[in-house]
Amino acid sequence: MPTGSANPTAMLLRLRKNATRADLEAVLKLARELGYETRFLDGGRQLLEARRPEAAGPGAPPDRSRFEDMACVAQVLDAAEARELAERSPDRPDTVVRVGDSATAFPAVFGGGCVSLIGGPCAVEDEGRLTEVAQAVRRAGGTLLRGGAFKPRTSPYSFQGLGAEGLERLARVRAAVEIPIVTEVLDPREVERVGATCDMFQVGSRSMTNFALLREVGAAGKPVLLKRGFAATAREFLLAAEYVLAAGNPNVVLCERGIRGFDDVTRNVLDVGTVAWLKQATHLPVIVDPSHAAGRADLVRPLARAAIAAGADGLIVEVHPDPSEVHSDGAQALPLDEFRRLVRDVRALVDLDGRIFVAPEREPETEREMETIP
Amino acid sequence: MPTGSANPTAMLLRLRKNATRADLEAVLKLARELGYETRFLDGGRQLLEARRPEAAGPGAPPDRSRFEDMACVAQVLDAAEARELAERSPDRPDTVVRVGDSATAFPAVFGGGCVSLIGGPCAVEDEGRLTEVAQAVRRAGGTLLRGGAFKPRTSPYSFQGLGAEGLERLARVRAAVEIPIVTEVLDPREVERVGATCDMFQVGSRSMTNFALLREVGAAGKPVLLKRGFAATAREFLLAAEYVLAAGNPNVVLCERGIRGFDDVTRNVLDVGTVAWLKQATHLPVIVDPSHAAGRADLVRPLARAAIAAGADGLIVEVHPDPSEVHSDGAQALPLDEFRRLVRDVRALVDLDGRIFVAPEREPETEREMETIP
Amino acid sequence: MPTGSANPTAMLLRLRKNATRADLEAVLKLARELGYETRFLDGGRQLLEARRPEAAGPGAPPDRSRFEDMACVAQVLDAAEARELAERSPDRPDTVVRVGDSATAFPAVFGGGCVSLIGGPCAVEDEGRLTEVAQAVRRAGGTLLRGGAFKPRTSPYSFQGLGAEGLERLARVRAAVEIPIVTEVLDPREVERVGATCDMFQVGSRSMTNFALLREVGAAGKPVLLKRGFAATAREFLLAAEYVLAAGNPNVVLCERGIRGFDDVTRNVLDVGTVAWLKQATHLPVIVDPSHAAGRADLVRPLARAAIAAGADGLIVEVHPDPSEVHSDGAQALPLDEFRRLVRDVRALVDLDGRIFVAPEREPETEREMETIP
Amino acid sequence: MPTGSANPTAMLLRLRKNATRADLEAVLKLARELGYETRFLDGGRQLLEARRPEAAGPGAPPDRSRFEDMACVAQVLDAAEARELAERSPDRPDTVVRVGDSATAFPAVFGGGCVSLIGGPCAVEDEGRLTEVAQAVRRAGGTLLRGGAFKPRTSPYSFQGLGAEGLERLARVRAAVEIPIVTEVLDPREVERVGATCDMFQVGSRSMTNFALLREVGAAGKPVLLKRGFAATAREFLLAAEYVLAAGNPNVVLCERGIRGFDDVTRNVLDVGTVAWLKQATHLPVIVDPSHAAGRADLVRPLARAAIAAGADGLIVEVHPDPSEVHSDGAQALPLDEFRRLVRDVRALVDLDGRIFVAPEREPETEREMETIP
Repeated sequence: MPTGSANPTAMLLRLRKNATRADLEAVLKLARELGYETRFLDGGRQLLEARRPEAAGPGAPPDRSRFEDMACVAQVLDAAEARELAERSPDRPDTVVRVGDSATAFPAVFGGGCVSLIGGPCAVEDEGRLTEVAQAVRRAGGTLLRGGAFKPRTSPYSFQGLGAEGLERLARVRAAVEIPIVTEVLDPREVERVGATCDMFQVGSRSMTNFALLREVGAAGKPVLLKRGFAATAREFLLAAEYVLAAGNPNVVLCERGIRGFDDVTRNVLDVGTVAWLKQATHLPVIVDPSHAAGRADLVRPLARAAIAAGADGLIVEVHPDPSEVHSDGAQALPLDEFRRLVRDVRALVDLDGRIFVAPEREPETEREMETIP
Repeated sequence: MPTGSANPTAMLLRLRKNATRADLEAVLKLARELGYETRFLDGGRQLLEARRPEAAGPGAPPDRSRFEDMACVAQVLDAAEARELAERSPDRPDTVVRVGDSATAFPAVFGGGCVSLIGGPCAVEDEGRLTEVAQAVRRAGGTLLRGGAFKPRTSPYSFQGLGAEGLERLARVRAAVEIPIVTEVLDPREVERVGATCDMFQVGSRSMTNFALLREVGAAGKPVLLKRGFAATAREFLLAAEYVLAAGNPNVVLCERGIRGFDDVTRNVLDVGTVAWLKQATHLPVIVDPSHAAGRADLVRPLARAAIAAGADGLIVEVHPDPSEVHSDGAQALPLDEFRRLVRDVRALVDLDGRIFVAPEREPETEREMETIP
Repeated sequence: MPTGSANPTAMLLRLRKNATRADLEAVLKLARELGYETRFLDGGRQLLEARRPEAAGPGAPPDRSRFEDMACVAQVLDAAEARELAERSPDRPDTVVRVGDSATAFPAVFGGGCVSLIGGPCAVEDEGRLTEVAQAVRRAGGTLLRGGAFKPRTSPYSFQGLGAEGLERLARVRAAVEIPIVTEVLDPREVERVGATCDMFQVGSRSMTNFALLREVGAAGKPVLLKRGFAATAREFLLAAEYVLAAGNPNVVLCERGIRGFDDVTRNVLDVGTVAWLKQATHLPVIVDPSHAAGRADLVRPLARAAIAAGADGLIVEVHPDPSEVHSDGAQALPLDEFRRLVRDVRALVDLDGRIFVAPEREPETEREMETIP
Repeated sequence: MPTGSANPTAMLLRLRKNATRADLEAVLKLARELGYETRFLDGGRQLLEARRPEAAGPGAPPDRSRFEDMACVAQVLDAAEARELAERSPDRPDTVVRVGDSATAFPAVFGGGCVSLIGGPCAVEDEGRLTEVAQAVRRAGGTLLRGGAFKPRTSPYSFQGLGAEGLERLARVRAAVEIPIVTEVLDPREVERVGATCDMFQVGSRSMTNFALLREVGAAGKPVLLKRGFAATAREFLLAAEYVLAAGNPNVVLCERGIRGFDDVTRNVLDVGTVAWLKQATHLPVIVDPSHAAGRADLVRPLARAAIAAGADGLIVEVHPDPSEVHSDGAQALPLDEFRRLVRDVRALVDLDGRIFVAPEREPETEREMETIP
């Protein structure tokens, strides 16, 4: 199987800014002659993908060089390594991802100096409870509600989520509380159905290498919260994002949620170094899930603080009105008052940096409430 | 989200061998009354799954105990931990997985003391070449041909395999060389199409947690080669197999292919300890992929020997007529003569254990050929 | 080899607060009769270690229970698990570690809400340069100078540090700049010599399991900066500290410096989760080395910020007047202006928490200087 | 701190085979003029180390090139990377390490196609028991007795071994059973005392980076069993061996004992890939410790088989007459009959390869005994 570097079945051509229409036509003509199908990956028509259905033949290197010889071709990229759409470049501003329809709810904003918080239970269960949490999250300063209708479970016999019924509950709570919703999608065949309800797709850690799913959410148009695989390198993570971007969806938010380690004092090892690296390497927003990283409520707040201090553009936090009641992952869900303290800390850190903490106006009583927190 | 342990939305009941028809009816009646849907997971009707669409309520523990109180219920299993179908039990013989239609080809046999070898290129490319490799693999003692039509690639721009065209080539080579075929499936929507060609599905390392895919191959009926995720625990691996088994497909072959480590002298760390543990923990066959573990041809043979000595029921090896020509993964593909030496070593180790090396009769000239190998 | 749990060769007895002199004598008498040598591990005479030179015999469990039966014995601890001296207990205040003789220099203070910074080059080389860095570190707000005279090197042929000559240079710089010094000791035979110069011993990551060295620095009296082994669990780390504490030295500062991972975007994975856990689990101060964690200067500041936000009591940072000149580890050493920015960020985070940033008064021109930093 | 590559404080010069006395003198003269102290690292006087007490100056590169310009200097090696003494080279035969004085006992032989087994308890305890195990190990085919007098313990309160008393017991058992002894040394100050008793030093996993200890055992003359750090790369492992070799001791046996992983079905992950790599990369013998890798007796035999099949030159196995009695590590100690089965398996694998299994003649009753093993 050919690698990108000498791979005639897939090439990425970066074209010069000053390329003329005639230049473009010349490139497309040559590609056609060599048997490549082409498409532009960006609006600016500067990044051209050339694919050939047939596998490598001896003609490969010549092909490549023939494109390289053209004046308007700035570079022929290594298809296996190119993170062309995800990578930060000097002339490229931060991508700012807005989630939620401002007509019906206060939108969440990630990136470009804007920090937003996502809160909610692990899985959708009782609707009354979900409404209660949604209101509390919103009041505390959260701008997105999380809640799983389809749950990825290690065991086939575990509760797999409420599915369609869960989606309907999410939709009703979304309307009632006026807060946008992010929920996980597991199966490319469910993307359409889930997209009809949610404001943002979540692709979980265990789906980061589900490339069919990445392509589907890439085509579906709504913003995508992409979680890092718990043993994925930072580059593999960016290439997973590249799948979504290359499918035409620019609204990807990356989420570090901890990597698998050898110790057990935390459930996973929160990799703040990679958060800092990503903030340099990509223009995409980067958030952190301190709940799954810690795996225990008492360490969620310090990890949340560390993430924001390292430059994260937001957090996704597991919150539950009464964690003692939650069976699974209950150990890591934050009670509401703890969540309010976390929000207060995050707000202070964001202010210190001169960044913007994005939150709907909060009722005064909540303010007073917060003052009373020890 | 409720865990299995107190989870009324999913319970596994192990019934006593001596349960009467009346006993069964009593259990099913109680389940119905409590609002559970039920199904037997095994032919022997001793393992009953009870699911309830609705999430947990306070009534949970009573439910559980009511089943436990029934004389014919041996045990109510923790749904989140149960590896009931995959686990070895005293009265349960090794699962022997046969691959290939003995009418048209010599079948591969894994488990129960039978050892088979899978060989072939990483990806399907030139058909003439594939035929050549298939014949050589068969002649050398391999009983299954591997070859990827759909390739999981880290980059969206890398060669993704020949897809449908690749499947057709596999089908033609299969007919011409009379050797069964294992090929990877990535997308639940492609299971039917891939199943129409292959004799065995491969679920790759990066798809081990693609639960929708596991359910589909579980329903598709053909044997499944399930590779361990490169950072999955042995228990998570068995639970992934449990998804396939619980969907009604008993023919699962587990494959250890190396875990991600901190060093780079090998591409992955071959975890022979887990191979040895799996041979004790499950009745399913366990094979090893020394090619992806080593990531370099010169270490494939010693790893193959180690795997067989540790008790593996087979190997899947990357073979190529002329590795120097292969672009990707070429570094790890074995030349044919090296593959023959590997087969000879494996055969000797299997004989030493009094196990059976499964291979079609081999032409004498190949025998002579092999004698000449230094 | 007996474990602690049933091990009669080493027992830890926690005595009740209200134990009388007569009670103590009874315990000591019984221990003598059973052939144990005893010593109190704490000033409060509540923690008694009982050792027996001879290995376990059948009499073991009875021994244990005979102590447990005594009214004044609150608990017989599992010697293999006990982190009795390192562990935080309700009635125990944070340990505050002061480094440096306030007569000759402004001391560093770690713990109890006090945050101090350590800065300096990796290894002691040119004395003029070292003086320059020491002055700059002090002026920027650092209170401890780091510099290696004895270097642990992976290769026997690499520069092993200037040794005795390096110590002398450190001593002269210490006197000239009036800043305390922390330097690494590698060999138990060098503890006395190194202790004659330094204000604080550094025990490096690769020496965390050098138990003979831990005992020697424990007996030497001066504060110890103990770095976590790059693959040590948090509990193993605390038990290494316990070696120093049990040798009679209460002044241990723990340092997380990153664990070994599978990716290469950072040299090590900074484990902020363990920093947060340690702040709960132990009364000892916990600091972080962002330089070795990142392995690259451009990620040191975000990691430093994350560490402080997670609750760290200080940082040890590699600083060099002209990193471009440094050959080894140069990639991770911070230029002075970058170090000043880091200090400014840390100071702001510490203020935000209402903690105390410990630093000598700084010359106004430095202040102005800092204002001009972009 | 200068790296090796441009490091004038330590250089390794590989001299041409045909270098004349005059050539050598010219090199030594130049080195003196440039202020280097020199010594030959090998008997053949082809590898010259040049050290300079003072740290790097601008003069560095010129120095290096001046040596490179000399006709008799084949190469100036990178001191930080050079594994010159450990590395396999075409003209260099396998190092064969003999342990034990053939006058008093049957010696163990590692390498050059010879395979030897080491067996014994984790720690020296009861002398009668130790004698019993020693006799049984020898009878079963083991040629070296292991037993710890000084134990590295994670906790300062755990049993630290019998120390001097343990050494004396080892000495008496050695004389009585006529079997050579390998025992661990932890402290450079104890090397002389331990060396007076043992036939081979063991440097444990947690001491692999104790460079002072490596130098001492390198100077002590007796063979060294060097265990890989549980998170050391293969290259770091070879460089640790290089410390011993560079100190003048050529008799180093490398031991892989498992690396730290994320799963718990085995205590460590036996890295057979690194065993295979080491067999190519170095001329030193490589053995495996399946007991510490598995951490459980039931997986020791398959791991032992895998190690030998991967090319290991021997094994070190924990054996105990009655594991149920052992408190610590008891879970992983093999009962004698299981050890005999392991030896039988290893012997068969070694014979299959045409390698030599080194063992004293065994009494017939043992043979019969073995036949009766199921």
